[in-house]
Amino acid sequence: MHTSLNLPLESSLPYSSYLRRLINQNLTMPIRSIAFGRYDEFKHPDTIKAGVAEFISTFIFVFAGTGSGLAFSKLTNDGPATPTGLMVAAIAHAFALFVAVSISANISGGHVNPAVTLGAFVGGNITFLRGLVYILGQVLGSIVACLLLEFVTNGMSVEEFTFDEGVGFWNAFVFEIVMTFGLVYTVYATAIDPKRGNLGTIAPIAIGFIVGANILAGGAFTGASMNPALSIGRVLVSWNITLPNHLVFWTAPLIGGAIAGFVYDFLFMNQTHDHLPGSA
Amino acid sequence: MHTSLNLPLESSLPYSSYLRRLINQNLTMPIRSIAFGRYDEFKHPDTIKAGVAEFISTFIFVFAGTGSGLAFSKLTNDGPATPTGLMVAAIAHAFALFVAVSISANISGGHVNPAVTLGAFVGGNITFLRGLVYILGQVLGSIVACLLLEFVTNGMSVEEFTFDEGVGFWNAFVFEIVMTFGLVYTVYATAIDPKRGNLGTIAPIAIGFIVGANILAGGAFTGASMNPALSIGRVLVSWNITLPNHLVFWTAPLIGGAIAGFVYDFLFMNQTHDHLPGSA
Amino acid sequence: MHTSLNLPLESSLPYSSYLRRLINQNLTMPIRSIAFGRYDEFKHPDTIKAGVAEFISTFIFVFAGTGSGLAFSKLTNDGPATPTGLMVAAIAHAFALFVAVSISANISGGHVNPAVTLGAFVGGNITFLRGLVYILGQVLGSIVACLLLEFVTNGMSVEEFTFDEGVGFWNAFVFEIVMTFGLVYTVYATAIDPKRGNLGTIAPIAIGFIVGANILAGGAFTGASMNPALSIGRVLVSWNITLPNHLVFWTAPLIGGAIAGFVYDFLFMNQTHDHLPGSA
Amino acid sequence: MHTSLNLPLESSLPYSSYLRRLINQNLTMPIRSIAFGRYDEFKHPDTIKAGVAEFISTFIFVFAGTGSGLAFSKLTNDGPATPTGLMVAAIAHAFALFVAVSISANISGGHVNPAVTLGAFVGGNITFLRGLVYILGQVLGSIVACLLLEFVTNGMSVEEFTFDEGVGFWNAFVFEIVMTFGLVYTVYATAIDPKRGNLGTIAPIAIGFIVGANILAGGAFTGASMNPALSIGRVLVSWNITLPNHLVFWTAPLIGGAIAGFVYDFLFMNQTHDHLPGSA
Repeated sequence: MHTSLNLPLESSLPYSSYLRRLINQNLTMPIRSIAFGRYDEFKHPDTIKAGVAEFISTFIFVFAGTGSGLAFSKLTNDGPATPTGLMVAAIAHAFALFVAVSISANISGGHVNPAVTLGAFVGGNITFLRGLVYILGQVLGSIVACLLLEFVTNGMSVEEFTFDEGVGFWNAFVFEIVMTFGLVYTVYATAIDPKRGNLGTIAPIAIGFIVGANILAGGAFTGASMNPALSIGRVLVSWNITLPNHLVFWTAPLIGGAIAGFVYDFLFMNQTHDHLPGSA
Repeated sequence: MHTSLNLPLESSLPYSSYLRRLINQNLTMPIRSIAFGRYDEFKHPDTIKAGVAEFISTFIFVFAGTGSGLAFSKLTNDGPATPTGLMVAAIAHAFALFVAVSISANISGGHVNPAVTLGAFVGGNITFLRGLVYILGQVLGSIVACLLLEFVTNGMSVEEFTFDEGVGFWNAFVFEIVMTFGLVYTVYATAIDPKRGNLGTIAPIAIGFIVGANILAGGAFTGASMNPALSIGRVLVSWNITLPNHLVFWTAPLIGGAIAGFVYDFLFMNQTHDHLPGSA
Repeated sequence: MHTSLNLPLESSLPYSSYLRRLINQNLTMPIRSIAFGRYDEFKHPDTIKAGVAEFISTFIFVFAGTGSGLAFSKLTNDGPATPTGLMVAAIAHAFALFVAVSISANISGGHVNPAVTLGAFVGGNITFLRGLVYILGQVLGSIVACLLLEFVTNGMSVEEFTFDEGVGFWNAFVFEIVMTFGLVYTVYATAIDPKRGNLGTIAPIAIGFIVGANILAGGAFTGASMNPALSIGRVLVSWNITLPNHLVFWTAPLIGGAIAGFVYDFLFMNQTHDHLPGSA
Repeated sequence: MHTSLNLPLESSLPYSSYLRRLINQNLTMPIRSIAFGRYDEFKHPDTIKAGVAEFISTFIFVFAGTGSGLAFSKLTNDGPATPTGLMVAAIAHAFALFVAVSISANISGGHVNPAVTLGAFVGGNITFLRGLVYILGQVLGSIVACLLLEFVTNGMSVEEFTFDEGVGFWNAFVFEIVMTFGLVYTVYATAIDPKRGNLGTIAPIAIGFIVGANILAGGAFTGASMNPALSIGRVLVSWNITLPNHLVFWTAPLIGGAIAGFVYDFLFMNQTHDHLPGSA
């Protein structure tokens, strides 16, 4: 699970390692260019291929996951949420995310989620520009999946994420942060950490299944998005945004992912190994 | 996951690599014989064994998957589809396909589906003749499974795939294309691509589970076949074909599989490695 | 997944290889001692440890699997079977068998089922005497699990396997044969065949999940035992045997397992490799 | 899955090996310091990191698992337990424990449960002091998860484990012992035993799924905790303890875990290999 992006060596170092080397060697190269990346990354074939892989993976994930919600609505005539509906959503997202991560793991690192990409950036595992390409691919994949779902279901409406009654803004905000923390922490421990060893083999399953488990907890309260690309695709296609509540689904997963990236990198990452951009 | 079919080297090249070599070296050997295979492949023991493995795998897959639908009918006295019924179908097909792919992976590549075989052919990973043997095995396995199901259930009727009400021909057509695209793309990324690395270990799980996830989305609309052998077995044994709708279940998965083979091969396959026929 | 039983080399050969060597070298050693084993195997520490491992694995499998049936009865006040009940049984048996196979895989080969042991014997992968020790451990483990379940549930009754109404003797007979064929064929392809490669890593999952998938099909018709040890434990503790129907659950899985062992060994096993007794 | 704790070699030996070496070499170093550990372990960075990893893993596990119970209560308006509710609990705990074990496997050995830590101690696989740090992390993680759940659900009450009606003290006591025995035996066979081989790759899945299977059996009778940290977190936050029944959930899992550690070590562990503290 690593890419072979041919960047100059120094720009593929983690931020923390770079700082250390900078201090030791008294270099004068601007720090910003390291984490930011170089503009020609946009045109590098590997960056573009990785973005396309993120597009296809997120498309497949959102199509099955969000489609399972439409299926539940159809079978129950838009009936209320039930424990069985929660199971359908959890299994559909768990299985589909596992596969979506698998099929792009060797090309882009299998992020499938801007919160994962931000978490990888915070720990110095992807440059800013390359991360932007990933997020663009993810958001487009989600939008196309939602549009296509409305066609293939002959006009059913994709629905935006909303809180269930009795759940306040800050409840949902913290809920989404905690769940996404668990997701991105899992990505770090099983897919990014070079010490992962054999765990790397089952990493995509772990990443899919923590989302399934979290949906069984949070799905009845916030919908359990944990993924801004998913949230954006659904709200854009439903064209029905409830503010300020919907901001939770854009911001909280990013915060949770960033915290996970910082915590895992600070506590457990070997400070001297080499990262490769996008390796997840 | 590769076979050791003793064909002359040039006929085991991917189509695209062969074309490149042909142009470079100005050879005059007829192109057709490369992708088409040679007639004596039909009699090669490895080809026959692979066909038998596809027969047994597809039999086990269809027996459990279609059998779970009969079980649901029995337990609900032919009641209407419910979210629980959707879960039963998704888990039965996901688990059974995972196993069916596993048990033939080292013998035939674990296709278990003509759409996978066609997708492998499009990317130059199996010859036409060998693919025909696979598809024959798959269709026969599906038919025998459906016939046997009618016996062991003491005369219950296997039912053909049909659209749910409110779903039009083109809705279902695109739905099946998209779902099968996801399936065959997964086969390429996790089982065919030589860069798959450790992913190969969990490839059969990913292949089974993307079908499970897609059933949770499409099962309530088209039945989510994604597999012409499954469709043919059920429609032949039910002897009740609804035209033109049923054509969706024969053609759309093949189109989706072919697109996935072309897209993955075009975007992500290393253009210089060697393929082996049937390797999946 | 292989044992290190210190038998003389010739008695650890598969039956078919031994016959071939016998013919080639014109040996006069009695054939029977090869597949039968030697009486001192009973006292060999590795044989005894393997039997204990089979006892513990089968105990854990039957405790969770059969216990899930009692849980369903308790939660529904002995209500009729439903699709949800089918799912509970399928997931409990799939997960528990996966684990039961895993935890004895390196000690006994992880049979957990006399039909698997017979299938392994037919293909020359275990001696008769060692197989007897396995089956003894399996049957005892099942009986102890059923007895303990009646205690911990404060007196609920474990129930024997029975056919559902509308299912005849020969329907159930063939159903159990077909399902157990699929199970033991899976054991051969993923755990016994030396060509299994990376598949060996996920073999226990495949073995557990084919049982889960088959329960979703056969559970509503025959109960889907596929395991004589399970059947014997439940019928002995329930002390309520319905003849001749119950004979299906003792004989059909053994027939299905034997057929699978013969078919896989005949078609796909490399005829020249060495087997080790109990290696599964 | 091993830690690199830099202890003197003799204190990282299993208890049984140490005794043997003591007898052979007639050493006079006090035995107690071996299994007990040394006081400065508390301050060793690796011990502290392992404790933090146990804290985070247990937090993620309890948050999803216990949260799924609150979700079921919300969706059913505190309705009674049903087979679907049992499935929700089983899948949530199975998936979340699989992930929780994965993400700390390479740091602390992935115990996530004081019963596992005690079982590891009994077999000489962790020192007493290091075990205390683990258990402290586990209990704190569980408490924080339960507190946070009450906030994010806007005031729903986490509930302590209780027996279902008709289940007596000793029924529940034995039930929890048996289920935890299966869990810790699985940890030994797939994660601690150096002979585990490829099984180590899927060990976290097996550990999660045996808990899922056991919940499908025991969840309708005792709640199927199998984990004193989980029990303590829930009872402390619910602040509603029913004595003497609740003692079952503190003591029985520890007894079951200790028995499993003793049985597996006694029967199947190679007596001459080296253990590393915390390696699981």
